[in-house]
Formats: sequence, C-alpha cells, structure tokens
Amino acid sequence: MLERELAAILGPKGWVPGAESAGSSHDWLNRYGELPLGVARPASTAEVAAVVAACHAAGVPVVPQGGNTGLCGAAVPGIPGGVIVNLMRMGGIEPPDLAGGSVTVGAGLVLARLHQALEGTGLMFPMHLGAEGSAQIGGLIGTNAGGSQAFRYGMMQDLVLGLEVVLPDGTIWNGLRAVQKDNAGYQLRKLFCGAEGTLGVVTRAVLRLHPAPRQRLTALVALPSLAAAVTFGTGLSAEAGEFLQAMEFFSETGLDLALRHVAGLDWPLDSRAKAYLLLELGSGSPRVALDEIATALLEQGMEQGLILDGALAASGAQRAAFWRLREEQPEGQRREGPQLKHDISVPPARIAEFVDRGEALCNATLPGVRINPFGHLGDGNIHYNLTPPEGRADFAGQDAALANALAALATDMGGSFAAEHGLGRSKTALADALRPPAERALHRRIKAALDPAGQMNPGVIVQPIDKNNLSI
Amino acid sequence: MLERELAAILGPKGWVPGAESAGSSHDWLNRYGELPLGVARPASTAEVAAVVAACHAAGVPVVPQGGNTGLCGAAVPGIPGGVIVNLMRMGGIEPPDLAGGSVTVGAGLVLARLHQALEGTGLMFPMHLGAEGSAQIGGLIGTNAGGSQAFRYGMMQDLVLGLEVVLPDGTIWNGLRAVQKDNAGYQLRKLFCGAEGTLGVVTRAVLRLHPAPRQRLTALVALPSLAAAVTFGTGLSAEAGEFLQAMEFFSETGLDLALRHVAGLDWPLDSRAKAYLLLELGSGSPRVALDEIATALLEQGMEQGLILDGALAASGAQRAAFWRLREEQPEGQRREGPQLKHDISVPPARIAEFVDRGEALCNATLPGVRINPFGHLGDGNIHYNLTPPEGRADFAGQDAALANALAALATDMGGSFAAEHGLGRSKTALADALRPPAERALHRRIKAALDPAGQMNPGVIVQPIDKNNLSI
Repeated sequence: MLERELAAILGPKGWVPGAESAGSSHDWLNRYGELPLGVARPASTAEVAAVVAACHAAGVPVVPQGGNTGLCGAAVPGIPGGVIVNLMRMGGIEPPDLAGGSVTVGAGLVLARLHQALEGTGLMFPMHLGAEGSAQIGGLIGTNAGGSQAFRYGMMQDLVLGLEVVLPDGTIWNGLRAVQKDNAGYQLRKLFCGAEGTLGVVTRAVLRLHPAPRQRLTALVALPSLAAAVTFGTGLSAEAGEFLQAMEFFSETGLDLALRHVAGLDWPLDSRAKAYLLLELGSGSPRVALDEIATALLEQGMEQGLILDGALAASGAQRAAFWRLREEQPEGQRREGPQLKHDISVPPARIAEFVDRGEALCNATLPGVRINPFGHLGDGNIHYNLTPPEGRADFAGQDAALANALAALATDMGGSFAAEHGLGRSKTALADALRPPAERALHRRIKAALDPAGQMNPGVIVQPIDKNNLSI
Repeated sequence: MLERELAAILGPKGWVPGAESAGSSHDWLNRYGELPLGVARPASTAEVAAVVAACHAAGVPVVPQGGNTGLCGAAVPGIPGGVIVNLMRMGGIEPPDLAGGSVTVGAGLVLARLHQALEGTGLMFPMHLGAEGSAQIGGLIGTNAGGSQAFRYGMMQDLVLGLEVVLPDGTIWNGLRAVQKDNAGYQLRKLFCGAEGTLGVVTRAVLRLHPAPRQRLTALVALPSLAAAVTFGTGLSAEAGEFLQAMEFFSETGLDLALRHVAGLDWPLDSRAKAYLLLELGSGSPRVALDEIATALLEQGMEQGLILDGALAASGAQRAAFWRLREEQPEGQRREGPQLKHDISVPPARIAEFVDRGEALCNATLPGVRINPFGHLGDGNIHYNLTPPEGRADFAGQDAALANALAALATDMGGSFAAEHGLGRSKTALADALRPPAERALHRRIKAALDPAGQMNPGVIVQPIDKNNLSI
C-alpha cells in the first residue's frame, strides 16, 4: 500500500497524512486544492526519487510544492488522492563560488534566506518579488519567476546555470553544471524553468550571482499619467540603464488602497498624481555620482513636464518605507474585499495603451469596476487587478468575461496573459483558446514525451493528455 | 518527383540543383558535408513551409542553413540526398520598436547588417562574434550563440523574445510575441535556441534590444599570467561590472600567430607577456567619467602586481586595431597549418586552472603540441585551439584523444565541452560518453516528440533515433 511505503521511505518527520494536510492542500488564496493522500516532506534527493518512483509504480499523481505562494493553483492538487511533495526540508545553501559568481542551493530554500546568506559577500542573487519571504527556489524555477529586476538581470531561466531534477519515473537527472555557456544539446535547464512541476521535481539548482552594487539610490516619483511614466522610463533606460535595478509603476488607485487599509504607511510627497514610479539605481563604483545623475534626470523630466514631483530616499529606513508603499498594495486590495488578479505583459512602450484599452473593456463589461494596474515598467509586466464597483461585493458573475477580454487584448498587442505567474490550473483553458493550436500541440507533445504516464502535476499547463491525439 | 515539386514551389531563383550546390554543401573548414538533392532558397515563410512539407511527405531529410559559419557541421548534410534550406533570401528587418526595445527580423539576416541598421537609433543588439559578417540570425539562434558580450547581455536564448518556426511537418508556429515575460506554457522559444535545426526551421525572430552606450572605452592590458587576469577580472566586475561589455583574454601564443601571419597588425604596448586582456566599457550617461574609472582600476591592478602594462584606445581606429589583434588570431592559427578547435566552458574562476591542467593533458598525449587558449573571461568560455608541435604537420593521430581528454576535464570541472558552438555532428558521441544517460534520454525524447519522422537535420545533437528505445 502506497501510504505505508511512503511513510517508511520518509520517516515520521517526512510524511503528513492527508487528514492533517490542511496547511499544504490548498493555495493561500484558497481557490485551488483537493485532499491529498498525504504530504511528503523528503530530506534528500534520494528520498524525492524514492517517493516519485513509488507514486509512479502505483499510478498516483505527484504535485511538487515549494512555498505555495503561487496564484494559479499549480502547487496544490487538482484532483483528490495524489501526493504533494513539499521541498521545505531541502533548503540548504552550499558555500558560494564568489570568484565564479554562482551558488548551489536546495530547491526548498526560501528566497529571502538566500539574500541574507549572500549579504556581505559582494555578490547578490538579483531576484526580488513580494513573496520572497515564503517563495522557494524550486517554486520560483517552476513558475520561471520574474519580479522587479527581471528587465535588468532576467527571469529565473536566465539565472539558472544548472539543475538537478527527479524525473517523473523517479530517475535523477544531475545537470548541476555551473556555466552560462553550455550548448551540449537541448536547453533542458531552460525547459524546466516554467514547467510548473509538470515534467519533474526540481531538487537542486546552480544559480548565477551578480556583483552587488556598493551604492544604491531609491527615488519615488509622481507623474501626470502612465503614458508620461513610460516616456520617462524610456529616457531613463537610455541614459542610466546600466544603473537601473527597479522601475516599478503604480496608480493612485493602488496607493489609495494601501494607505487606507495598511497601517504604518506614510506618503512622502506633497503631490498625489495619476501615476507613480519607484526607481532604484545601483553602482559598483564609488566613482559614480549616482545622486547627481538621478537628480539631473529627474529635473530634466520635470522640465519636460513628464514628472510632477519626486523624492530620493535619504536613509535605508526611508528606502524600505518607499518599497512598502508599493508592496503593500496587493494586501490593501485584499482587505478591500474580493479581487481579480490578471498577470499581463505587453511590449513596454504599450503599457499605458493597454491600461487605457483595458479600462474601456472592463467598464463595458462591468461599469464602475475599480482597476489597480501596477507592475514593472522595464519589461511591460502589468498586474492588472480589479476590485468590484463601489457598493458591490462581487463581480456580478463577470469574472471570466473580464479575464478573457484582458487576455485577448494582451494577445492582440503582442503580449502575454501569463507573464510571470504561469498557467497553472487557472489559465490552461485561456491558453487553449488564445495560443496558436500548433503551440499548444508542442506543449502537449513535450508533456507526453517527458511524462508519458501523465502523473506529474496533471492538469497544470496542459489538460490531461490523450496520447492518441498529439497531432499538431 | 520531389525535385520538380520543389523547383515549382521556389521558382528559378529559389532552387539550386545538387550538382551546383558546392557553395552550400560543405562547411567552411571543409570537414563536413554531402551532396544534397539541392539547395532551397525560399523567399518567404510560406515557401519554407511548402518545402518542408514536401520533404516530409517524400521522406527526405531537411538541413536548415544560415551563414554556414558553424564549426560542428550542423549546417550541412551528414548523408547525401537531403535538401538544404538556406535562408539567405529571408533577411528582412522590420522597423524597430525603439521605445519598447525590440526588432522583428528574418532568420536570414546577417548579424553585421542588423548592427548597421540599428546605428544611430540609440539601441543595439548586443551580440558580437568573429563571424558576424556572415553569420545569420537563424544560425545564431540554432547554435544559441554567445560571443564576447554574453556574460553581460546573455546568449541568443536570452535575447530572443519571440520566434516563428516551420515545424518538421511543414506547420508554421507563429510565436512572434515581443515580451520578455511570457510564461504561458513551456518555454518553446528557449528550446529552439540551441536546437541546431533539429526541431524545425526558424524563419523569423523578435529580438530584444538594449540601450547603446553613448561613450565607450577600450583597453588592452598585458598581465603576468592567466591567473592574474582572472583575479583582475573578478575585481573589475565588482567595481565596474555595470560598464563592462567585453573582457576577452588571449595568450602570447595566439598573439604571436596573428602577428606572424596576418598583415597590418601592430602591437601597441612596450611589453609582451604571458596573458592579455581586451576590455571594453560603455555607459549611457555622459556624467560617468569612464576613463577615470578605468585608469584608476588599471593603476590599482598594477600596484597589486596583476597588470604589467596597458593602453587605452585613443580613437575609433585604435579601438578597431585592438580588436583585430584579438579577432585575427584564429586566422593566424589557420595559416600556421592544421589545427584542432575545442570550445570549452568552465566556472569563470577556474579558467587558469583549466588551461594549466589542459596543457599537462595535451603534452602527455602529444608532447610539444602548441596551445592557443583565448576566449571570454566573464563566462569562462575558453577556445582551446591546438597547433601541431614545431616541425610537425599533424597531430599524430591523437585528434580524438586530445578532444576527449579536454572534454572530460571540462566536465569534471563543472563545465561544458560544447559552450557556444553546439554539438552539431562532431560532438554527439562526446555527449553520449560524457553526459548522464538520463540527460541524453531527455534529448532523444524531445527530438522524437517534435520530429517523430526524424527528418529534420538527422544526426545532429542526437544520433538517429530508435523510437522503440526512448527509456531514460
């Protein structure tokens, strides 16, 4: 019997029966999840392999799980009775290769712990996102996470040099190489980034590190419109692109939600405006006058009418306060009541156009719906989140209509309806509807080739596959 | 009959019969190639699709070909009778999206032409390599090219936002999206980078552009050893990493080969040394004192005994002359006589260790063999090229022994024996020997899933596949 076998493989610390799995069986927004047979918490790659092999032999689905911070349901079961493989006990960090710029870590390592471990080494892992206090490296790899610095340093796929993966039948693939340039065959390390646990369980990774800036500057800027923010951002990239580490935009709607609902936030500017930017610049050289460069560019923006007001953070505490104003907006919106999250990307020059056209579409579907667009100016990633119209407690049954309209608009504009949160369980139907049939056929073929039994996180990325119908 | 069908699809400009195919049927080093049925030169994606569909129906292999500058035989046939699909007539460039930072191009576009087209726009495509006057975008995608700026801006897979590909049965996949963040399913755009034409014919691509530096500085530096160069490079990355665009190393052996055999080269330093660096720094900001920063770091290197001598290029002409000293070395070595090229990567901190250990291995195999290591300090990519011992005209039959020993050493050191030139036809056996069986099984499964008939560039990356044996 599988449960007894798994309990024996994992020991008492490593096996949580289904009845006690409440903390793992559902996502944090409680929109997805089913009762599993149990939660495996392996302590080694060998244990992961043994668990996956046993499930494979028993024909039982496996759901890999990291910090369970995902928004699309990929880290919890879609059907009852499967086995969740939670990597939380595999969060080790090997001593970093400081001269070579890499570090080998366990997939269960929490991102913020990696940042802490690298402090003072002169190197950093340039991946920052709101969930970094819980999100684990394996989950970040699974969703090919992006975050605020992706436009500068890349997404996870650009930061993963090597991987160790337990394949769907329990075989261990050791691809823990530590070089950027490795073209000895198909780019498996890239393929597993964004595979959302459907092709195997990532157990370890070699991550690329970058030099940490030795001086840093954070600015908060108010602008007359999102279009002005886009124009200002383009100029900033041209003249100070090598220093830019974050270029976050948000709106008055999002700021208001944060200030109303989250304690301890203060607005440091005299002005309120339609659009805001949170900018971060860094340099490794003490010979660069970062404040002069930033001040000159902000003044230039004011002269051009692109900027209304701005402030530079005068201390680390103020820098943290600026960032909280941005990062507490999702929490503010959550406390306002029901919400719909959409993870869009468009070519960066078209961000304002998307927001305008999206507003028209949303208002046509549900008049008065409140729109909170925020995101990453450098890569065109818009978190286009909705709150019901004033006085309403829901979206009047228009949830899917709103999602479909926004996804179709992003697609028409050369962008994506799944930018950095993945497809998970929530967007496979959208992908079937909006992506070319040939593209979806390729996805199904890859899934069928690497997980022929269809037991690895079934229902994520692609619908369970009919192996007799893989035609393109 | 296939030939008549293809001639009808392509018209007289588009079909070159096998008997007249000498310019396309073999690689430029004349080590690979077979007589094809003919060379298709389609002028549109629709023509590519029609050609590939016709070949698919006839059971005839297709070999995609770009500029045919590859070193591993992937762009020419391994067996007689196939059809070469040369993209030279599909080299168009659409107007770039300057604010969004992307450009859509035909796969047949020569890299240097793209550089020229972007001059004066404020943006650049940061891919530079010796063959850029002939290499085409499609071929660069096929081999996932790297070059001198990869450590800063990434390889092709990091620069490709969207792709259009004709699949092995002739279906067109249009994935021409223009966003970095797109996680709606498996990362197909990354998978086709480095697939060396074995999964389809890339016909168009959306490429990511970066801001072009507005000031630039080039330095040539002599150092007492390669180990000193590695140490100096690490410090340079920490303090001036955001400006670094190239960090090329070479040896006295390579310099001597270039100076002896190539006309018009002058050595600008007073010193000759064991190791040299060619450094390039750039900045978008006129407020950065790049020369002060570089001078200070070079002086610091001299004080630390890491640098013997150095010069900054005083003009564009001198900059070009510095680069020629590096880029003519392969030509110098070619004129010296027979050579063996090895494309290695190791963790960047271990470059000098690899060169030392490689020297010992090579000398044990063929005493006196002359070693010319050069490459890219930032990513650990070593072009470890060999010339026979003085007085010998060949490698005494030790060619494979040398390649195997160096490949095994790179593998042991956490690196790759196929860094940026791919596996092609020349290294599939090495990959079978040195990569984990599970990894090679994944490669075979991907190939079989996307090219079930095995007609797309057969023999490249994986041996022709027995579909009944895909076990991991």
